[in-house]
Amino acid sequence: MPSTEEMKAAVERYASAHSAKDTDAVVALFAEDCVVADPVDGEPMQGRDALRDFFGGTHRNAERFELRVTGPIRAVGSWAAVPMRAETTMGGATYAIDIIDVFTFAEDGLIGDMRAYWTASDITEL
Amino acid sequence: MPSTEEMKAAVERYASAHSAKDTDAVVALFAEDCVVADPVDGEPMQGRDALRDFFGGTHRNAERFELRVTGPIRAVGSWAAVPMRAETTMGGATYAIDIIDVFTFAEDGLIGDMRAYWTASDITEL
Repeated sequence: MPSTEEMKAAVERYASAHSAKDTDAVVALFAEDCVVADPVDGEPMQGRDALRDFFGGTHRNAERFELRVTGPIRAVGSWAAVPMRAETTMGGATYAIDIIDVFTFAEDGLIGDMRAYWTASDITEL
Repeated sequence: MPSTEEMKAAVERYASAHSAKDTDAVVALFAEDCVVADPVDGEPMQGRDALRDFFGGTHRNAERFELRVTGPIRAVGSWAAVPMRAETTMGGATYAIDIIDVFTFAEDGLIGDMRAYWTASDITEL
Protein backbone atom coordinates (compact mmCIF):
# COMPACT_ATOMS: atom_id res chain seq x y z
CA MET A 1 0.00 0.00 0.00
CA PRO A 2 1.16 3.58 -0.56
CA SER A 3 2.23 5.49 2.55
CA THR A 4 0.39 8.61 3.67
CA GLU A 5 3.27 10.68 2.25
CA GLU A 6 2.99 8.90 -1.11
CA MET A 7 -0.76 9.51 -1.21
CA LYS A 8 -0.29 13.19 -0.37
CA ALA A 9 2.37 13.49 -3.09
CA ALA A 10 0.00 11.88 -5.63
CA VAL A 11 -2.72 14.41 -4.73
CA GLU A 12 -0.25 17.29 -5.19
CA ARG A 13 0.80 15.83 -8.57
CA TYR A 14 -2.87 15.51 -9.55
CA ALA A 15 -3.32 19.25 -8.90
CA SER A 16 -0.10 20.35 -10.62
CA ALA A 17 -0.66 18.16 -13.71
CA HIS A 18 -4.16 19.62 -14.09
CA SER A 19 -2.82 23.15 -13.75
CA ALA A 20 -0.27 22.38 -16.50
CA LYS A 21 -3.19 21.02 -18.63
CA ASP A 22 -1.06 17.87 -18.95
CA THR A 23 -3.82 15.33 -19.57
CA ASP A 24 -1.42 12.39 -19.92
CA ALA A 25 0.24 13.18 -16.59
CA VAL A 26 -3.15 13.33 -14.87
CA VAL A 27 -4.28 10.03 -16.39
CA ALA A 28 -0.97 8.34 -15.50
CA LEU A 29 -1.85 8.73 -11.79
CA PHE A 30 -4.88 6.44 -12.22
CA ALA A 31 -5.15 2.67 -12.44
CA GLU A 32 -6.18 1.19 -15.80
CA ASP A 33 -9.50 0.02 -14.27
CA CYS A 34 -10.17 3.22 -12.30
CA VAL A 35 -13.64 4.57 -11.55
CA VAL A 36 -14.14 8.34 -11.37
CA ALA A 37 -17.30 10.29 -10.53
CA ASP A 38 -16.78 14.05 -11.01
CA PRO A 39 -19.13 15.30 -9.71
CA VAL A 40 -19.99 12.39 -7.39
CA ASP A 41 -23.63 12.27 -8.57
CA GLY A 42 -22.63 12.08 -12.24
CA GLU A 43 -22.31 8.94 -14.35
CA PRO A 44 -19.11 7.19 -13.18
CA MET A 45 -16.33 7.07 -15.78
CA GLN A 46 -14.52 3.75 -16.06
CA GLY A 47 -10.94 3.34 -17.17
CA ARG A 48 -8.12 5.55 -18.38
CA ASP A 49 -9.51 6.12 -21.90
CA ALA A 50 -12.74 7.59 -20.51
CA LEU A 51 -10.72 9.78 -18.14
CA ARG A 52 -8.45 10.96 -20.97
CA ASP A 53 -11.50 12.07 -22.97
CA PHE A 54 -13.05 13.83 -20.00
CA PHE A 55 -10.00 15.66 -18.64
CA GLY A 56 -8.66 16.29 -22.16
CA GLY A 57 -11.90 18.10 -22.96
CA THR A 58 -11.63 20.13 -19.75
CA HIS A 59 -8.07 21.14 -20.60
CA ARG A 60 -8.79 21.93 -24.29
CA ASN A 61 -11.90 23.98 -23.55
CA ALA A 62 -10.19 26.21 -20.98
CA GLU A 63 -7.96 29.12 -21.87
CA ARG A 64 -6.57 28.65 -18.37
CA PHE A 65 -7.18 25.83 -15.91
CA GLU A 66 -5.80 25.73 -12.40
CA LEU A 67 -6.43 23.19 -9.64
CA ARG A 68 -5.18 24.09 -6.18
CA VAL A 69 -5.13 22.19 -2.90
CA THR A 70 -6.90 24.60 -0.51
CA GLY A 71 -6.67 22.75 2.80
CA PRO A 72 -4.83 19.93 4.54
CA ILE A 73 -4.86 16.56 2.79
CA ARG A 74 -6.28 13.86 5.14
CA ALA A 75 -4.45 10.69 4.12
CA VAL A 76 -5.27 7.49 6.00
CA GLY A 77 -5.34 3.79 5.12
CA SER A 78 -5.79 3.68 1.34
CA TRP A 79 -7.63 7.03 1.15
CA ALA A 80 -6.93 10.71 0.77
CA ALA A 81 -9.56 13.44 1.21
CA VAL A 82 -8.76 17.03 0.29
CA PRO A 83 -10.43 20.39 -0.30
CA MET A 84 -9.55 21.84 -3.71
CA ARG A 85 -10.42 24.81 -5.90
CA ALA A 86 -10.60 24.59 -9.69
CA GLU A 87 -10.43 27.82 -11.66
CA THR A 88 -11.22 27.78 -15.34
CA THR A 89 -11.15 30.67 -17.80
CA MET A 90 -13.38 30.28 -20.86
CA GLY A 91 -14.35 33.05 -23.29
CA GLY A 92 -12.70 35.61 -21.04
CA ALA A 93 -14.77 34.69 -17.95
CA THR A 94 -13.25 32.87 -14.98
CA TYR A 95 -15.21 30.42 -12.86
CA ALA A 96 -14.15 28.84 -9.58
CA ILE A 97 -15.45 25.53 -8.27
CA ASP A 98 -14.84 24.59 -4.65
CA ILE A 99 -14.57 20.85 -4.26
CA ILE A 100 -13.77 18.09 -1.79
CA ASP A 101 -12.08 15.19 -3.59
CA VAL A 102 -11.82 11.69 -2.08
CA PHE A 103 -9.23 9.36 -3.64
CA THR A 104 -9.00 5.61 -3.01
CA PHE A 105 -5.60 4.16 -3.84
CA ALA A 106 -4.80 0.69 -5.16
CA GLU A 107 -2.01 -1.50 -3.78
CA ASP A 108 0.44 -0.21 -6.40
CA GLY A 109 -0.12 3.44 -5.40
CA LEU A 110 -2.24 4.33 -8.43
CA ILE A 111 -5.65 5.92 -7.91
CA GLY A 112 -8.37 3.28 -8.17
CA ASP A 113 -11.35 5.48 -7.41
CA MET A 114 -11.97 9.23 -7.19
CA ARG A 115 -15.12 11.04 -6.20
CA ALA A 116 -15.44 14.82 -6.46
CA TYR A 117 -17.97 16.41 -4.11
CA TRP A 118 -19.28 19.61 -5.71
CA THR A 119 -22.47 20.83 -7.32
CA ALA A 120 -23.71 23.82 -9.33
CA SER A 121 -24.07 26.00 -6.21
CA ASP A 122 -20.34 25.54 -5.53
CA ILE A 123 -19.47 27.43 -8.74
CA THR A 124 -18.79 31.17 -8.55
CA GLU A 125 -17.80 33.63 -11.29
CA LEU A 126 -14.67 35.53 -10.31
CA MET B 1 -34.13 12.29 -1.09
CA PRO B 2 -33.06 15.11 1.24
CA SER B 3 -32.28 18.44 -0.42
CA THR B 4 -28.81 19.97 -0.25
CA GLU B 5 -30.13 22.37 2.40
CA GLU B 6 -31.49 19.47 4.47
CA MET B 7 -28.17 17.63 4.24
CA LYS B 8 -26.24 20.76 5.28
CA ALA B 9 -28.62 21.26 8.22
CA ALA B 10 -28.10 17.62 9.31
CA VAL B 11 -24.31 18.13 9.25
CA GLU B 12 -24.68 21.29 11.38
CA ARG B 13 -26.90 19.36 13.81
CA TYR B 14 -24.33 16.56 13.94
CA ALA B 15 -21.69 19.09 15.02
CA SER B 16 -23.87 20.92 17.53
CA ALA B 17 -25.21 17.71 19.13
CA HIS B 18 -21.64 16.45 19.58
CA SER B 19 -20.59 19.76 21.14
CA ALA B 20 -23.49 19.47 23.59
CA LYS B 21 -22.34 15.88 24.34
CA ASP B 22 -25.92 14.89 23.52
CA THR B 23 -25.31 11.28 22.44
CA ASP B 24 -29.00 10.57 21.78
CA ALA B 25 -29.32 13.60 19.50
CA VAL B 26 -26.25 12.49 17.52
CA VAL B 27 -27.53 8.93 17.15
CA ALA B 28 -31.01 10.15 16.12
CA LEU B 29 -29.47 11.60 12.93
CA PHE B 30 -28.48 8.10 11.76
CA ALA B 31 -30.50 5.33 10.16
CA GLU B 32 -31.09 2.19 12.24
CA ASP B 33 -28.88 0.18 9.83
CA CYS B 34 -26.16 2.83 9.49
CA VAL B 35 -22.51 2.03 8.88
CA VAL B 36 -19.87 4.33 10.40
CA ALA B 37 -16.08 4.19 10.04
CA ASP B 38 -14.37 6.77 12.28
CA PRO B 39 -11.55 6.82 11.33
CA VAL B 40 -12.20 5.45 7.85
CA ASP B 41 -9.57 2.70 8.23
CA GLY B 42 -11.09 1.47 11.50
CA GLU B 43 -13.51 -1.42 11.95
CA PRO B 44 -16.88 -0.18 10.63
CA MET B 45 -19.59 0.19 13.27
CA GLN B 46 -23.00 -1.10 12.31
CA GLY B 47 -26.28 0.22 13.67
CA ARG B 48 -27.43 2.78 16.19
CA ASP B 49 -26.55 0.74 19.29
CA ALA B 50 -22.90 0.46 18.25
CA LEU B 51 -22.84 4.19 17.52
CA ARG B 52 -24.42 5.01 20.89
CA ASP B 53 -21.67 3.04 22.66
CA PHE B 54 -18.93 4.68 20.63
CA PHE B 55 -20.06 8.30 20.79
CA GLY B 56 -21.33 7.88 24.36
CA GLY B 57 -17.82 6.84 25.39
CA THR B 58 -16.33 9.82 23.56
CA HIS B 59 -18.69 12.20 25.34
CA ARG B 60 -18.28 10.62 28.80
CA ASN B 61 -14.48 10.51 28.60
CA ALA B 62 -14.14 14.18 27.67
CA GLU B 63 -14.35 17.02 30.14
CA ARG B 64 -15.16 19.14 27.09
CA PHE B 65 -15.90 18.01 23.55
CA GLU B 66 -16.48 20.36 20.65
CA LEU B 67 -17.02 19.56 16.98
CA ARG B 68 -16.93 22.49 14.58
CA VAL B 69 -17.55 22.77 10.85
CA THR B 70 -14.35 24.44 9.60
CA GLY B 71 -15.08 24.85 5.89
CA PRO B 72 -17.90 24.86 3.36
CA ILE B 73 -20.13 21.78 3.32
CA ARG B 74 -20.20 20.24 -0.19
CA ALA B 75 -23.69 18.71 -0.46
CA VAL B 76 -24.59 16.96 -3.72
CA GLY B 77 -26.85 14.05 -4.66
CA SER B 78 -27.16 11.98 -1.49
CA TRP B 79 -23.77 13.04 -0.08
CA ALA B 80 -22.24 15.75 2.07
CA ALA B 81 -18.49 16.22 2.51
CA VAL B 82 -17.17 18.65 5.09
CA PRO B 83 -13.97 19.64 6.90
CA MET B 84 -14.37 19.57 10.69
CA ARG B 85 -12.31 20.03 13.82
CA ALA B 86 -12.90 18.03 16.99
CA GLU B 87 -11.47 19.38 20.24
CA THR B 88 -11.47 17.22 23.30
CA THR B 89 -10.25 18.06 26.78
CA MET B 90 -9.20 15.10 28.93
CA GLY B 91 -7.21 15.27 32.16
CA GLY B 92 -6.65 18.97 31.63
CA ALA B 93 -5.03 18.55 28.18
CA THR B 94 -6.82 19.58 24.99
CA TYR B 95 -6.34 17.76 21.70
CA ALA B 96 -7.58 18.84 18.29
CA ILE B 97 -8.27 16.46 15.40
CA ASP B 98 -8.72 17.87 11.91
CA ILE B 99 -11.05 15.71 9.88
CA ILE B 100 -12.90 15.47 6.59
CA ASP B 101 -16.24 13.70 7.09
CA VAL B 102 -18.24 12.22 4.21
CA PHE B 103 -21.91 11.46 4.92
CA THR B 104 -24.19 9.38 2.67
CA PHE B 105 -27.88 10.02 3.28
CA ALA B 106 -30.75 7.57 2.96
CA GLU B 107 -34.03 8.38 1.19
CA ASP B 108 -35.64 9.48 4.47
CA GLY B 109 -32.92 12.04 5.19
CA LEU B 110 -31.19 10.00 7.90
CA ILE B 111 -27.45 9.30 7.64
CA GLY B 112 -26.89 5.83 6.21
CA ASP B 113 -23.10 5.90 6.07
CA MET B 114 -20.39 8.12 7.51
CA ARG B 115 -16.64 7.94 6.98
CA ALA B 116 -14.24 10.16 8.90
CA TYR B 117 -10.92 10.82 7.16
CA TRP B 118 -8.26 11.43 9.82
CA THR B 119 -5.30 9.65 11.29
CA ALA B 120 -2.88 10.02 14.21
CA SER B 121 -0.82 12.68 12.43
CA ASP B 122 -3.94 14.88 12.23
CA ILE B 123 -4.03 15.17 16.06
CA THR B 124 -2.38 18.16 17.71
CA GLU B 125 -2.16 19.13 21.38
CA LEU B 126 -3.38 22.68 21.90
